Amino acid sequence: MLNQLKYLIIGSPLPSEMMAEKRLNKVRALAAFSPDALSSVAYANQEIFLGLVVAGAAGLSFQFPIALGITFLLGIVALSYAQTIRGYPSGGGSYVVARENLGTYPGLVAGGALLLDYILTAAVSLTAGVAAIASAFPELWAYRVWLALGLLLLIMLLNLRGMRESGTVMAVPVYLFLVSFLGMLSYGVVRAAMQGTPTPLAAAAPAAVEPLGLFLIMHAFSAGCTALTGIEAISNGVTAFKPPEWVNARKTLIIMAILMAFLFSGSIGLTQFFGVVAQPNETILSALARQLLGIGPAYYLVQFSTLAVLAVAANTSYAGFPRVTAILAKDKFMARQLFNVGDRLVFHNGILLLSALTAVLIVTFNGDSHALVPLFAVGAFTAFTLSQAGMVIHWYRAKDAGWRIKALINGLGALVTGSTLLIIGISKFREGAWISVLVIPGLVFLFLKIREHYRHVASQLTLRGLPPSLRPLPTPRVVLPVSGVHRGMVDAVNFARSITDQVTAIYIDIDPGPDEEELLRRWNEWFPDVDFVVIPSPYRSVVEPLLSYLERTDLEHNDGQQAVLVLPELIPSSSWHEILHNQSADEIKKALLYQRRQSGLQRIIIDVPYHLRK
Amino acid sequence: MLNQLKYLIIGSPLPSEMMAEKRLNKVRALAAFSPDALSSVAYANQEIFLGLVVAGAAGLSFQFPIALGITFLLGIVALSYAQTIRGYPSGGGSYVVARENLGTYPGLVAGGALLLDYILTAAVSLTAGVAAIASAFPELWAYRVWLALGLLLLIMLLNLRGMRESGTVMAVPVYLFLVSFLGMLSYGVVRAAMQGTPTPLAAAAPAAVEPLGLFLIMHAFSAGCTALTGIEAISNGVTAFKPPEWVNARKTLIIMAILMAFLFSGSIGLTQFFGVVAQPNETILSALARQLLGIGPAYYLVQFSTLAVLAVAANTSYAGFPRVTAILAKDKFMARQLFNVGDRLVFHNGILLLSALTAVLIVTFNGDSHALVPLFAVGAFTAFTLSQAGMVIHWYRAKDAGWRIKALINGLGALVTGSTLLIIGISKFREGAWISVLVIPGLVFLFLKIREHYRHVASQLTLRGLPPSLRPLPTPRVVLPVSGVHRGMVDAVNFARSITDQVTAIYIDIDPGPDEEELLRRWNEWFPDVDFVVIPSPYRSVVEPLLSYLERTDLEHNDGQQAVLVLPELIPSSSWHEILHNQSADEIKKALLYQRRQSGLQRIIIDVPYHLRK
Repeated sequence: MLNQLKYLIIGSPLPSEMMAEKRLNKVRALAAFSPDALSSVAYANQEIFLGLVVAGAAGLSFQFPIALGITFLLGIVALSYAQTIRGYPSGGGSYVVARENLGTYPGLVAGGALLLDYILTAAVSLTAGVAAIASAFPELWAYRVWLALGLLLLIMLLNLRGMRESGTVMAVPVYLFLVSFLGMLSYGVVRAAMQGTPTPLAAAAPAAVEPLGLFLIMHAFSAGCTALTGIEAISNGVTAFKPPEWVNARKTLIIMAILMAFLFSGSIGLTQFFGVVAQPNETILSALARQLLGIGPAYYLVQFSTLAVLAVAANTSYAGFPRVTAILAKDKFMARQLFNVGDRLVFHNGILLLSALTAVLIVTFNGDSHALVPLFAVGAFTAFTLSQAGMVIHWYRAKDAGWRIKALINGLGALVTGSTLLIIGISKFREGAWISVLVIPGLVFLFLKIREHYRHVASQLTLRGLPPSLRPLPTPRVVLPVSGVHRGMVDAVNFARSITDQVTAIYIDIDPGPDEEELLRRWNEWFPDVDFVVIPSPYRSVVEPLLSYLERTDLEHNDGQQAVLVLPELIPSSSWHEILHNQSADEIKKALLYQRRQSGLQRIIIDVPYHLRK
Repeated sequence: MLNQLKYLIIGSPLPSEMMAEKRLNKVRALAAFSPDALSSVAYANQEIFLGLVVAGAAGLSFQFPIALGITFLLGIVALSYAQTIRGYPSGGGSYVVARENLGTYPGLVAGGALLLDYILTAAVSLTAGVAAIASAFPELWAYRVWLALGLLLLIMLLNLRGMRESGTVMAVPVYLFLVSFLGMLSYGVVRAAMQGTPTPLAAAAPAAVEPLGLFLIMHAFSAGCTALTGIEAISNGVTAFKPPEWVNARKTLIIMAILMAFLFSGSIGLTQFFGVVAQPNETILSALARQLLGIGPAYYLVQFSTLAVLAVAANTSYAGFPRVTAILAKDKFMARQLFNVGDRLVFHNGILLLSALTAVLIVTFNGDSHALVPLFAVGAFTAFTLSQAGMVIHWYRAKDAGWRIKALINGLGALVTGSTLLIIGISKFREGAWISVLVIPGLVFLFLKIREHYRHVASQLTLRGLPPSLRPLPTPRVVLPVSGVHRGMVDAVNFARSITDQVTAIYIDIDPGPDEEELLRRWNEWFPDVDFVVIPSPYRSVVEPLLSYLERTDLEHNDGQQAVLVLPELIPSSSWHEILHNQSADEIKKALLYQRRQSGLQRIIIDVPYHLRK
């Protein structure tokens, strides 16, 4: 019944042969890989605005310059990743590139940073999406945590189903967002041209509460760097493109970077030109759209398409996170269950883990994307830097035609992302970056601990050193704990006698009285050839007297042989009925299975179920 | 480690021989059995006040008359229970008396009513106790649910420990309450005598919001009848008295009834005489104490001793409820675990069940004793009525000297408690009595269903009809699911070969590839005399292909014999490590143990653990 419910929600199991990937053309590939990158504009703008508004009109006048700086950075990083696509046509995620070129430890740092980045992409995108729609419908602010969690649940379920059809479905919100946003920006540029001179900021901006200084500008720049998150997605998925894969992937990356640059610098430029200032409980993008379009269908379309593209962006974490955890699990750095492929041919454990961690972040930070962003940029830029640095080594080792220029481009990428990482780490440290700075090494430590465990287990399981021919054991001695003389004992006694003639039934007597003699008489009547021993239990425990009886008799027999337990177990016809029965068999099994004995030997348990009818 | 924590909190296990009960003298017995009855005054007064105050001064003038009526009722019920003590010197709880004399169904109604009564005694006493102390410290009102739950937790833990020393400890709050309350009442009577004429109620009482009518008076009377709850306690515990048991028990009952009458009518009389009116967030008893004593040490002593006696009263449920559930469990009307005696010689499951249900009530009714009282009286008076009616039949059957007069007294008791039950049921129906009216038959239905289940199981377990001499089965066929060729397989293979020469190892292949041949080669190297079969699993399930293999080969062998499963199981060295391993063995065990097969046969599972080292 539980299975039926599961199949209803996530669909029935699929055979492994359906695993082969469908190739995507450039239009679909853009929709599949770009939502995270394109939608970054929604929170990056917001962060720059919030970072500068505290310095009033003077602060806000730095919006566009900062945007231009970040767009320049974007160009360098995009060029750098274009190289990665060339160098790793089979898919060059940060973890793979860093591990192969820089070594295990930098690889693990990149892996940890990447996992954090995926979780934060999901959390930030969902909360920013809810902020976009709540800007249009302010009564939704009160429910933002629940709305974000609801979207998360929906995305999780779709991913557990496997979303074979995702290509087309996902393309709709992405192109809707592009059309509505580029439309709005074009209209804005025309209006700006007609107006001629910018609206003075001083009229609308609130009074400065902090002085404008270098730190404040660095701080706003750091926050705005979240605009770059997601730019690496295409380099991970080169194999999904139609051949020639790396050529198509690279073209798509360049188109995407150009779109990002337009959306980002265009929207910030217009915000500054028209002197747009957001009220509390409204995003700056919503304020811009309201200013340009007025409140009407066009405005609602923009807000809705922002929510939609951010939801799709959160979904890209569901493509990346489970894949990275599966690779880490295959390399023994994470629990091997993360490498298991579920009924619907997806890494379901990775999906569940990502959802749980994202939900924790959304709840902890009360659904506020602004509070999450300081954590976000650290993970993303750590992965960027290590991946670019790894590419430098890659080209140096390959030494193919033009390797110097390629290494130079990636080196520049590593340098600027590394410097940005430093700026982010310092300027955002107290606001939350410290969390990421602690979490990433913590994850690396965990990865190493897990691999150590698996290695330790493997060393214990090797057959090397054992005598080459293994001999069977002598016939076992059997101990049979019984709860009385009844039908449930028959199968157990019969089986015990079928494998050995040394069977002892023992009865743990927790309530001594005159009944024992009657019990013995009935036992001998039905099972005359099986010894029946009564063991008093003054402390009313079933497990402990049984354990000490087994230890004692093992010693007495002195043949190095362990008594084997044959355990008759009544199975009620429904789980509702289980609470009406003592769970002694379960207790005994658990105690024996997990008991570590001084002798180091393990006890074999033979479970003989007897099913009760309905 | 979990066990050590448990022993730290509730103490280490005690041997069964310590079970014998210590006899109590009258002074200690009064402290042990009376807190529930004596402390009823705390909520009964409150309920009468709240019932009448809506009719203003005219309503409040009925306080004392109603109190006198209830005191009269108290006298009759006390006399009636004095008879029960005589008739059932071995302890005559309502369930026992009703079942023996009226039959199973009335017995079960009484049992259900009694359980409900115990749960509500705990819930009402704790919430009323919190109300007493929050009247003195108003800032505590906001935390009343938490305070009540905290007290509940404390009482639960003390009871799980077993409280061998309870006699003396419990006597302190009871006598403290008696001394402080009787002292206050005496002082009040002296002041009343000095004042001469009563303070007019009209000055203090709020305006009437409801007309004074018969229904309103009945309603207040019903609510006040909760003053009688707990009066039956002594009749359940006659065996705890020093000999001559019934004589001492009866004397103690009479003393207790006289004290109840004084406390109840005295406090209500003074409340009316001095025209005391409680404000919201204050109990009427607190208002009376404040009026008489002023705010000072004496007032705080009275409030504190009220809380203490109510906490002890809640504790009496912990003596009664687990005992009644154990009796019901022994009679197969409740789950047999309720009859298990825990480490500390208490019915620990009953204690846990009572605590859980009480906590649910406290939370559901938001810690408000006034909201709980309508549910309360129904249970108590149902048990009273059935128990008294049972006594009538008891005397009729016994027909010893003077049986007519004895039967008459109990008949009168049954009549007045029955009529009161009717009044309560009608006047309080909409306020919550309907819950009890539904729950009691629901419990009876549950009791009967549970007994039916146990009877059904017993009929399946009888050995009657089986052939008298049972023959062992032929040597088993063994199927051994393996996860690879490693050390963890050795014990399992060796054991399998020690009990049979028909062993087949099967490997469920969830990821087909070139590795299988290598696996087969290594298997044959190490275990050459054990067949190795690879079964592909296109849907990546381990359990289902195994089940269908077992079914298929059982049919092929056609000898009516079931293959036995030998299951090698790796046991990680700590439970933290378990999440790093696939739980295939657990899944297989669960599936096989609970699988109901068309053949109706059960599958035997042999669990061979292999412990991994730290």
